[in-house]
Amino acid sequence: MSKMIKIAVDAMGGDNSPKKVIDGIIHHHKSNTNTFYQIFGDKEKIQNHINDQLSSYSFEIIHTKDVVKGTDSPLEGAKRGKNTSMWLAVQSVKEKKSDIVISAGNTGALLVISKLNLKMIENIDKPALSALWPNKKNMSVVLDLGANIECSPKNLIDFSIMGSALFKSLYPDDTARVALLNIGSEELKGNEIIKETYQQLNQKNNTGFEFEGYIEGNQLMNGDVNVIVADGFTGNVALKTAEGTANFITSELKKAMTGNIIGKISSLLNISNLKKFKKRLDPRLYNGAIFIGLDSPVIKSHGGTDYIGFSNSLSVCTRIVSGNLIEKIRNYIS
Amino acid sequence: MSKMIKIAVDAMGGDNSPKKVIDGIIHHHKSNTNTFYQIFGDKEKIQNHINDQLSSYSFEIIHTKDVVKGTDSPLEGAKRGKNTSMWLAVQSVKEKKSDIVISAGNTGALLVISKLNLKMIENIDKPALSALWPNKKNMSVVLDLGANIECSPKNLIDFSIMGSALFKSLYPDDTARVALLNIGSEELKGNEIIKETYQQLNQKNNTGFEFEGYIEGNQLMNGDVNVIVADGFTGNVALKTAEGTANFITSELKKAMTGNIIGKISSLLNISNLKKFKKRLDPRLYNGAIFIGLDSPVIKSHGGTDYIGFSNSLSVCTRIVSGNLIEKIRNYIS
Repeated sequence: MSKMIKIAVDAMGGDNSPKKVIDGIIHHHKSNTNTFYQIFGDKEKIQNHINDQLSSYSFEIIHTKDVVKGTDSPLEGAKRGKNTSMWLAVQSVKEKKSDIVISAGNTGALLVISKLNLKMIENIDKPALSALWPNKKNMSVVLDLGANIECSPKNLIDFSIMGSALFKSLYPDDTARVALLNIGSEELKGNEIIKETYQQLNQKNNTGFEFEGYIEGNQLMNGDVNVIVADGFTGNVALKTAEGTANFITSELKKAMTGNIIGKISSLLNISNLKKFKKRLDPRLYNGAIFIGLDSPVIKSHGGTDYIGFSNSLSVCTRIVSGNLIEKIRNYIS
Repeated sequence: MSKMIKIAVDAMGGDNSPKKVIDGIIHHHKSNTNTFYQIFGDKEKIQNHINDQLSSYSFEIIHTKDVVKGTDSPLEGAKRGKNTSMWLAVQSVKEKKSDIVISAGNTGALLVISKLNLKMIENIDKPALSALWPNKKNMSVVLDLGANIECSPKNLIDFSIMGSALFKSLYPDDTARVALLNIGSEELKGNEIIKETYQQLNQKNNTGFEFEGYIEGNQLMNGDVNVIVADGFTGNVALKTAEGTANFITSELKKAMTGNIIGKISSLLNISNLKKFKKRLDPRLYNGAIFIGLDSPVIKSHGGTDYIGFSNSLSVCTRIVSGNLIEKIRNYIS
């Protein structure tokens, strides 16, 4: 039997919690019987939602009434003290009582509480926020998505290492191919920091990944590279612009496809194909961000996702732990 | 009769030129009889393509054998001398022989040749590259798209003024609503330059536009604002990411919709609706970038577009001249 994976779950964060979180756990448990859930939050509510749908050996509830609110500033969230469900969940990985921590709550507070409790991985200067992004071939890891607005070449090289380790934990059979997000593919373009990073990565014998040079925004999703590195400002703008563009196009498509009776009938006819399309672009598949650089991975599920989305984030947790993310990062640094 | 609009056209730039360019002029001429085209390039080839399809009073050809190549660096392009079709077209607006200049050729060379020949508008420090972008309500102007990698608050304020003047020249009946592209809508987020710009725009009594604060990438296309301002690095990443996302989604959609016989039949049934959708997103509608800040506007048509796309860029030229873009910028500064 494979080793039990222990996940510390903040049950009180995000919309419609703890119900959404508990339903996500129940859904995840169906196909992941080697996972143990340490659930932090309001015991009575959590117990009610579980309602005998989880094997008793697979979870424990650690009761707390205190919660970080979605409207808190990062500092306010941290100042709510050491008895919030978020703080206690992070503390659990700090004390090695679990392997990984997940919350759908306040992102800023989660980053601050994680930084206060967990140590940086040796030789990594700044942690980064990363996410999965679909491409024509499979998936890419993109980082940083907003944790660090300004970055040095050393930071961007760290992100290349961490992003590759994350990619390899999730897709052990593929080669990690790193590219720097820039405004042209020629060596001369971009700002000084990105050019310096290029030089350093290009001269190095990189462990764990191939360096593929620059990539432009329009190539982000063609699948030629799978680890895309940027400072937090650029990465955040790119991710959100992609999100906005996807929303815009699907809403225009919906308008066009159902605007009249012919449209409605033929869309009905084509429903299974359209469902396939919808599934491929389902944002719940890419739900969640991964905060890496600390000596334990911290997973942020989207606050607005449903239980399927939360369950997908739990699957990311188990794959990261099985893939030995932290150990991989340490290996790639040296 | 309204005043004749004179456009200086570099006929030799972009793929499939001069044919594409000439076909674009012929197409544009059908609905724009008050436009005069000064066409620069290989006279024999141009004459062959025109083949009596343009009224003789509506054009003249200025012959030159010299051309800037698509593969030239910006400086190499400029060094090809004062007899290239690009240089001569720019010189035509410099000498007030035409109102506006357009090229589908080498972007970098066009910017350098324009800067060498044309004067900056007084009190504008740096010219910017702008483009049109669809949103749920109509269109937005986005700038800078890569002319200035690093920008000061003064530059970003200049871009707000110029972008608003461009928007108002194209859409005289709408209010220009300016937003700064940032990574959060709260006042505290973003880098120092963007925060300083926010403060200044927020305190000012702006002429010609309303300042609406920050916008995130995912709101770029919802139409609440219509002039989106960023430094050239951020703007370029956002534009290209949107382009890449649109390509990705439409290719996934195509796969889903035509993957089997049911898909093919129902798509055929729905063809007029799908055509409407395709038309709404047709990149030829948004073809071309507008280089603003110099005392004459310079239009860059996409090198890869076809004659319809080039003709649309010619329509942008006529609307910009009729809308008195340069005069508007001067008014908004004061």
